[in-house]
Amino acid sequence: MSKYDIIVLGSGPGGYVTAIRASQLGFKTAVVEKESLGGVCLNWGCIPTKALLKSAQVFEYLKHAEDYGLSVKEADKDFDAVIKRSRGVAEGMSKGVQFLMKKNKIDVIEGFGKLKPGKKIDVDGKEYSADHIIIATGARSRELPSLPQDGKKVIGYREAMSLSEQPKKMIVVGSGAIGVEFAYFYNSIGTEVTIVEFLPNVVPVEDEEVSKQLERSFKKSGINIMTSSEVTSVDTSGKGVKATVKTSKGEEVLEADVILSAVGIKTNIENIGLEDVGIAVDRDKILVNDYYQTNIPGYYAIGDVTPGQALAHVASAEGILCVEKIQGMHVEPIDYGNIPGCTYCTPEIASVGLTEKQAKEKGFDIKVGKFPFSASGKASAGGHKDGFVKVIFDAKYGEWLGCHMIGTGVTDMIAEAVLGRKLETTGHEVLKTVHPHPTMSEAVMEAVADAYDEVIHL
Amino acid sequence: MSKYDIIVLGSGPGGYVTAIRASQLGFKTAVVEKESLGGVCLNWGCIPTKALLKSAQVFEYLKHAEDYGLSVKEADKDFDAVIKRSRGVAEGMSKGVQFLMKKNKIDVIEGFGKLKPGKKIDVDGKEYSADHIIIATGARSRELPSLPQDGKKVIGYREAMSLSEQPKKMIVVGSGAIGVEFAYFYNSIGTEVTIVEFLPNVVPVEDEEVSKQLERSFKKSGINIMTSSEVTSVDTSGKGVKATVKTSKGEEVLEADVILSAVGIKTNIENIGLEDVGIAVDRDKILVNDYYQTNIPGYYAIGDVTPGQALAHVASAEGILCVEKIQGMHVEPIDYGNIPGCTYCTPEIASVGLTEKQAKEKGFDIKVGKFPFSASGKASAGGHKDGFVKVIFDAKYGEWLGCHMIGTGVTDMIAEAVLGRKLETTGHEVLKTVHPHPTMSEAVMEAVADAYDEVIHL
Repeated sequence: MSKYDIIVLGSGPGGYVTAIRASQLGFKTAVVEKESLGGVCLNWGCIPTKALLKSAQVFEYLKHAEDYGLSVKEADKDFDAVIKRSRGVAEGMSKGVQFLMKKNKIDVIEGFGKLKPGKKIDVDGKEYSADHIIIATGARSRELPSLPQDGKKVIGYREAMSLSEQPKKMIVVGSGAIGVEFAYFYNSIGTEVTIVEFLPNVVPVEDEEVSKQLERSFKKSGINIMTSSEVTSVDTSGKGVKATVKTSKGEEVLEADVILSAVGIKTNIENIGLEDVGIAVDRDKILVNDYYQTNIPGYYAIGDVTPGQALAHVASAEGILCVEKIQGMHVEPIDYGNIPGCTYCTPEIASVGLTEKQAKEKGFDIKVGKFPFSASGKASAGGHKDGFVKVIFDAKYGEWLGCHMIGTGVTDMIAEAVLGRKLETTGHEVLKTVHPHPTMSEAVMEAVADAYDEVIHL
Repeated sequence: MSKYDIIVLGSGPGGYVTAIRASQLGFKTAVVEKESLGGVCLNWGCIPTKALLKSAQVFEYLKHAEDYGLSVKEADKDFDAVIKRSRGVAEGMSKGVQFLMKKNKIDVIEGFGKLKPGKKIDVDGKEYSADHIIIATGARSRELPSLPQDGKKVIGYREAMSLSEQPKKMIVVGSGAIGVEFAYFYNSIGTEVTIVEFLPNVVPVEDEEVSKQLERSFKKSGINIMTSSEVTSVDTSGKGVKATVKTSKGEEVLEADVILSAVGIKTNIENIGLEDVGIAVDRDKILVNDYYQTNIPGYYAIGDVTPGQALAHVASAEGILCVEKIQGMHVEPIDYGNIPGCTYCTPEIASVGLTEKQAKEKGFDIKVGKFPFSASGKASAGGHKDGFVKVIFDAKYGEWLGCHMIGTGVTDMIAEAVLGRKLETTGHEVLKTVHPHPTMSEAVMEAVADAYDEVIHL
């Protein structure tokens, strides 16, 4: 029986990063993977979708070349080539993880791992043991009872990024990050897209003003949006698919070639031996403390299977902290109030901290500032004036409670707010940080200035 | 005679921002402008060049559409339309400043202003007085004796962004931000471009590794680069222009349609009455203290006419601080060691703080980290893997001495480093700031991790 210091179950952005950090810290490490190294994120999530979105964004430039003093004839997309490029990028990244495993001397055990008592894992009949076992099995697309996925007419994100043919009509159920990214992508390349969202706003976890802005932008680009609406049943018996949608105004039947179900995720906690070992689970999540220890000594869990935000960067951070703690390093628990979230449609969305509504509900007396990109010189020069930066400060102590951005490139701009909040910056310090001109990032400084009635360009 | 609290001489990004902040603080304010509101930056600098560069970048997408699974026929640029778009963006921004002047109740005095003793300004024969006069007259393209500008065959940035015809061959003398931006733009739209740089590296103020990367990228895209070379004379007598270039290997004669002289700037301090008032000038700059007071009470100077970096964002920050001090607010002097610099060619360059060489020369024992975008998932998905983030920390106290970026979108990413440095962050704090995945901004976190031997994706 092979013995390791640390075995990580699952090689997604939680698992493989954990394994690398463990190896750096001197642990003899193995990672168990039943499918492709890199997990959903690299193979079926973050990375390949960004490749699709990039094709869509470039296609938009092709379609609007005249706006930039350019001309094209017969701009077209090759759906197969777009999908193929995306798959190629995913494969390249997965190979990159293979290389990293090798370079860090991490054993990759291929197969389905099942936890056993006594800090053991069975992988397809072969047993391995370790001083520390870290569960990082992640999650998959959640299925609604009213919307069973058949993988053909009712699909999840996985099929949505590898269809053999471009659908003419698509219904996207759910308008979280995954839903709106695919809605943007397919609409951009010419599919007629309808979003059905149960809640009153699209991207419902975002600040309401961000939701409204996205809704405006999406409608302008031709996407149909039905909020406060619910798919109650689907009929896949005909050529396409019919969805019965309950709206505030009554029932409606929509027809499409395909329905994408993007209504959240379901953790992969079945059949991995949690019950055999006695690991506590609550509401689909493995219970852990601040250091990702489960109730059973020697077993840990990180990433989507635990209660924090189900995001790749959270999983990576949790895994790193988990093994640093095992190694005896001084670690500070992750501040789940300072995790950025990003959505990569056009316009992009990025946010961190409390929304205006949340801040008010928590009883804060707040100062709100907002700077629209329509007033930004860089945005004008770039031809992308949609969107804004909104900041929320506590009026009493000056804490930067939240930052919400929608517009071009904001997913690369949110890091400033995350770092600023971590370092407990005041608004005044942000204001007196000289931001380069002309950049989109000036909008952060100006939004803060607006909160304190010092805005220049409004 | 009209009397103001504050008169600002010049309405560039120094002057107009100063005037707005002054008005916010309750001062009766006027601004004197001889040409267009917004100065060089809005009309002939930052903004219109970014518009040109955007057209070039979109043109690159058109030319490489196949890389994204797309196809175009006959992608072409319309030089006039590209220029026209750029001029339109500049005009729009200038009108925006007009609006801001009106909204903030700032009087705009059109004409050439000349300082008089007794806190007065003469504008084309009419006299105005103020309690405080702020000089913000900026700078213009510097002329070398060996390279006199005739505005036709030997031109400055101003002509370069408004040529009536696209040159077939262009020589760009000087490879600072202005030089390389125009070199990229013209090369991208099909002009044959040669850069002649006196120093051994292009973008000589940047970290050497950044210079080398830009040189590689530029050469790959077909730009000819001659470093350690000097234009000793030009001959404009023929159809085009001939430049004699002294290189380390001897003399060479280059032919072109036009030469762009981009060898720095010359301050606008002539004929504005500095001598009449007795304002001290040294080496082409007006001398000021930390609050931009000149040697003569009641007269101040900000922006390019003063010794700090000649950058729009510096001018704005100086002007704001200057009037806040006049108003009696508590202000902290600007930290000129924490001013970001940006260059908007492709790949973009952004940096703040010390280069590796400067840090070593100052005697720091340093830790250097570097993360190439070739290892970034987002860069792979976007198809722009050129470039890197490089960070420099003081090994002893952990101070973040410098941050140097080259690659797509980095001009919007540098703000994180500027804020982090202002807040005296440590590398560890940056490392434990959860950066969203997948973004280019992760490269900052990874570069810092590399400096501390904790990098994951290398």
